[in-house]
Amino acid sequence: MGEKVISEKNLRFLLYDVFDAPSLVKYPYYAEHGKETFDMILDTAIKIGKDMLKPNLQEMDKNPPRLVNGEVKIHPSVRAFLKKCGEGGWIAANAPMEIGGLQLPIMIGLLPTFIFGAANYSASAYISLTYGAAHLIESFGSRQLIETYVPKMFAGEWQGTMALTEPQAGTSLADIITSAEPTNEGYYRIRGQKIFISASDHNCAENIIHLLLAKIKGAPPGVRGISLFVTPKRRISSDGRLVFNDVNISGIYHKLGYRGSPITHMSLGENGDCRGYLVGEPHKGLTYMFQMMNEARINVGVGATAIASASYYAALEYAKERPQGRNLSAKDPALPQIPIIKHPDVKRMLLFQRSIVEGSLSLLFQCSKYADLKIVSNGKLNEKYSLLLDLLTPVAKTYPSEMGVLSVSQALQCLGGYGYCDEFPLEQYYRDVRIHPIHEGTTGIHGITLLGRNITMKGGKAFRLYLEEVNDTIQKAEVHSLLLPFAIQLRSALDKLESVTSHLIRIAEEKGLEFFLADATLYLEFFGIITIAWQWLLQAISIKKKMENDRSESDRKFCEGKMCVLRYFFCYELPKIEGLSLRLKNVDGLTVEMDEAYFDD
Amino acid sequence: MGEKVISEKNLRFLLYDVFDAPSLVKYPYYAEHGKETFDMILDTAIKIGKDMLKPNLQEMDKNPPRLVNGEVKIHPSVRAFLKKCGEGGWIAANAPMEIGGLQLPIMIGLLPTFIFGAANYSASAYISLTYGAAHLIESFGSRQLIETYVPKMFAGEWQGTMALTEPQAGTSLADIITSAEPTNEGYYRIRGQKIFISASDHNCAENIIHLLLAKIKGAPPGVRGISLFVTPKRRISSDGRLVFNDVNISGIYHKLGYRGSPITHMSLGENGDCRGYLVGEPHKGLTYMFQMMNEARINVGVGATAIASASYYAALEYAKERPQGRNLSAKDPALPQIPIIKHPDVKRMLLFQRSIVEGSLSLLFQCSKYADLKIVSNGKLNEKYSLLLDLLTPVAKTYPSEMGVLSVSQALQCLGGYGYCDEFPLEQYYRDVRIHPIHEGTTGIHGITLLGRNITMKGGKAFRLYLEEVNDTIQKAEVHSLLLPFAIQLRSALDKLESVTSHLIRIAEEKGLEFFLADATLYLEFFGIITIAWQWLLQAISIKKKMENDRSESDRKFCEGKMCVLRYFFCYELPKIEGLSLRLKNVDGLTVEMDEAYFDD
Repeated sequence: MGEKVISEKNLRFLLYDVFDAPSLVKYPYYAEHGKETFDMILDTAIKIGKDMLKPNLQEMDKNPPRLVNGEVKIHPSVRAFLKKCGEGGWIAANAPMEIGGLQLPIMIGLLPTFIFGAANYSASAYISLTYGAAHLIESFGSRQLIETYVPKMFAGEWQGTMALTEPQAGTSLADIITSAEPTNEGYYRIRGQKIFISASDHNCAENIIHLLLAKIKGAPPGVRGISLFVTPKRRISSDGRLVFNDVNISGIYHKLGYRGSPITHMSLGENGDCRGYLVGEPHKGLTYMFQMMNEARINVGVGATAIASASYYAALEYAKERPQGRNLSAKDPALPQIPIIKHPDVKRMLLFQRSIVEGSLSLLFQCSKYADLKIVSNGKLNEKYSLLLDLLTPVAKTYPSEMGVLSVSQALQCLGGYGYCDEFPLEQYYRDVRIHPIHEGTTGIHGITLLGRNITMKGGKAFRLYLEEVNDTIQKAEVHSLLLPFAIQLRSALDKLESVTSHLIRIAEEKGLEFFLADATLYLEFFGIITIAWQWLLQAISIKKKMENDRSESDRKFCEGKMCVLRYFFCYELPKIEGLSLRLKNVDGLTVEMDEAYFDD
Repeated sequence: MGEKVISEKNLRFLLYDVFDAPSLVKYPYYAEHGKETFDMILDTAIKIGKDMLKPNLQEMDKNPPRLVNGEVKIHPSVRAFLKKCGEGGWIAANAPMEIGGLQLPIMIGLLPTFIFGAANYSASAYISLTYGAAHLIESFGSRQLIETYVPKMFAGEWQGTMALTEPQAGTSLADIITSAEPTNEGYYRIRGQKIFISASDHNCAENIIHLLLAKIKGAPPGVRGISLFVTPKRRISSDGRLVFNDVNISGIYHKLGYRGSPITHMSLGENGDCRGYLVGEPHKGLTYMFQMMNEARINVGVGATAIASASYYAALEYAKERPQGRNLSAKDPALPQIPIIKHPDVKRMLLFQRSIVEGSLSLLFQCSKYADLKIVSNGKLNEKYSLLLDLLTPVAKTYPSEMGVLSVSQALQCLGGYGYCDEFPLEQYYRDVRIHPIHEGTTGIHGITLLGRNITMKGGKAFRLYLEEVNDTIQKAEVHSLLLPFAIQLRSALDKLESVTSHLIRIAEEKGLEFFLADATLYLEFFGIITIAWQWLLQAISIKKKMENDRSESDRKFCEGKMCVLRYFFCYELPKIEGLSLRLKNVDGLTVEMDEAYFDD
């Protein structure tokens, strides 16, 4: 099996040509860094992926976590990886220096997340979760909470989790019932059940720190009564020892994929002795948690893209080596067989995958850049980048996830029967990637978030800013004759987006929320395709520049290849908006009004 | 977990209302039967599925076949199932009475294939393979071959297989090198390797009969030099005993799904003592094998539809029982949660699944009816039904397979996190169904078959017959005001199909085969959507009649439900042809001309 799971060349292209990461160092917050740091991060992440993660990919899948005497045993390689990440500052890459972080741009933090995810998604999830949890404490917790937990978490010694879901409350967080009873000792007594919690127990960390949602007794109903607690597996006793905090693992899920990472059912306070430490103010937990969730959502997009990237390179390697059949116009059986990559249908399948992988990755860099610009700006600019990031988060989570599943499926298909067998990694990637349209909010939820909340928020300001961004790219592209046809096609797509959106907003006024949001998932798909087309055009502008300046053979190949993928996206993927816009304009209420008894037969 | 995997009501509707199976008994060949037989077959198949197959679904997945001392050990329940099928005549359901079959219409034979496949696809594959192999012997073999093998196979005592693929020759059968050396003793000496052979060895049958492709020494190159041999695992010695025939199992594949059925790597004639018995004439093997392959292709469509049906009912059951969230317009957390089936997005996902399952099933009945009419007719009519069946075989194989994968994925999605875990059967269905776009010819091959061979064969006669069939349905539908809008929409789709097809045929003339067939897979998708729309309109005509006549509450619900699914298909699925037709008319040669070196980065 080949070792290539990502294109370093493409990462450098996105980082330096398209999104100009070094431009961030002109802001004081990032002034300590420069291109050399970024290069080093990239090189080291690739090395870690290759040396520590990829070699354990299949073994972790075949030896999934086991629950033994109440503790979860995972693959031992995770311990060394966490240690390495702690020592190298990988977990704290984006955290401020004042609390021990490297204070790297979010865009640069995306590199290890992507590279580790492509090498071994399950392993990479441990550190993303720990960072997210630590970041939440650091952002909203007291100094004491920060000092107690964050350093150990950044060091990779303690694992972080986000503990939201309960048996009766998955998507509907308003319905959580885990309770927190105040005491006079500076902690709350926690009692409840949490399910589907990733990395929520394992033997490769000394302690597990749950960032847990619960309701303080007497809190208002619904989402306005949810508070956030640091709830460690082992709490620190008065004499500084780690003692059991009555956090019990009552079950472990056997999953389709993503098997290197344990997902458990937890029971808190079975013996009435589980202590939780309030983060920030009471009843504001969900607002805080949204920070972690939104970051986690971008990371889901990155993870899906990463698996799709690894799948693409596995399919490519096979397609180059596997001889089968002859050109359609040269069927003489005396001729030697040709490698399947020469068949147009196989090229089409590979172009599909690459258009998804590199289009998604570009969008994820775009979102990371907005996140960086949000950090370094204030006032109107800060609002602008916040709104753009918010608007695009459901797209950056969902497009890579939904299309990643299809992309990996096409990669598997390139191998025919071998794709279905475990001699090759495709069948595992196919199982692994399927988690992404589910966790951190299902696709359906993100459709409702995009259309029902983000498009209309602040009087549609985020949406207007988005249109400006895309229009700006169109204007920069249309001056190049090579790019003009694509710019025209994207403008027409953007017109469709505007007209479908206004149509739906009229529906909201005339027929109410249920009709407005009935096809929100399809609206998200429609919006996603146009957004990825935008990202392809944006890349094409940089390619155009590169073609004028760079003359090496390898650069020429890269640029020609990118132009082919751009053409593929505009010719094969963008036309899918035609059917979607037809549907979205036809709000007939079928799914609102249909009697559910009709589903029986 | 619920027991419902298929809709009996829908099967009866297709069988009696839409395709009028009893009308076949007016032909002498089927005159022995009547509606009572058909009802009995349906009832018994459902009972067998429920009692013998569904209970072992998960256990067979968790205990896949093992290769022990050269023999494959499978789940023991298969033995009883094969015995039952042998005794009940299920394997010989469609075979002529003169050789011990039930001589049932192909349409009726579809019932157990579908029902068994929905209950446990892996188990159902054993008998489909045996029937296909026996049917091949019966169609083209000598009387002696028939008498020696067919009765034991129909009795479920001997397993049949189709042994085509070799390490260097999967899709490209022209390149097989398994050799057959003539002897003077009435057999050929076989030597070679076969891979990916389903059910090719197991301990629940006394013998395994491989219908094997090989080249007789000195045969012409390519597909014109392929012959077909009966090659048993154990041959019959002169004194009537079964003795080892030098058929060795050298490996077993570990697969993503479809794990209840073994797929092996076979090595034939390692000791120079493997005997094969020629079927029919030398060098005509591939022509013979196409009979089995085409039947197997329809069965793949049935299997994919069956798994998608079981998935639909599993998702439906969950959606009715799982409370989560509230109506979008009634968010008060004090209100109780509602079952998720009440959410429009969940209804949309369920409608998607049902439109795929019931649209595909209708097409499969349609093809079976053509097969029956082909059997009972001759001359022009025989040619007509042969051509229609040939034309539609790639569609009936591929649409259910490709869309079945998406349908099962949506079913899994309805369960959220639970869909990803093995407490529910969805994750297994998701793995099982993924085989279908691969085996019996990948989707890419079927695209080329449809566009490159079937559309143009006999001067386009099959395609013209198809257009007549669809137009006939449109004319019957447009007289009903309720169906008129759908009839109009289908006519417009059919016009698009004609114009895209003529455009592509012009391309073939102007630019050659490579350009013509570059997007054949998309043409197949395009053709498939329109064909399923046709099948929905055909069903709607029967629904219209039923609504006028039947007045029971259950029938009313059924009819209203069907009309909702029809609306879904025409509003959500049929518009997908817009983007496809745009693409198919834009033959820019991207995938023909692109340099494969561009794929590297």
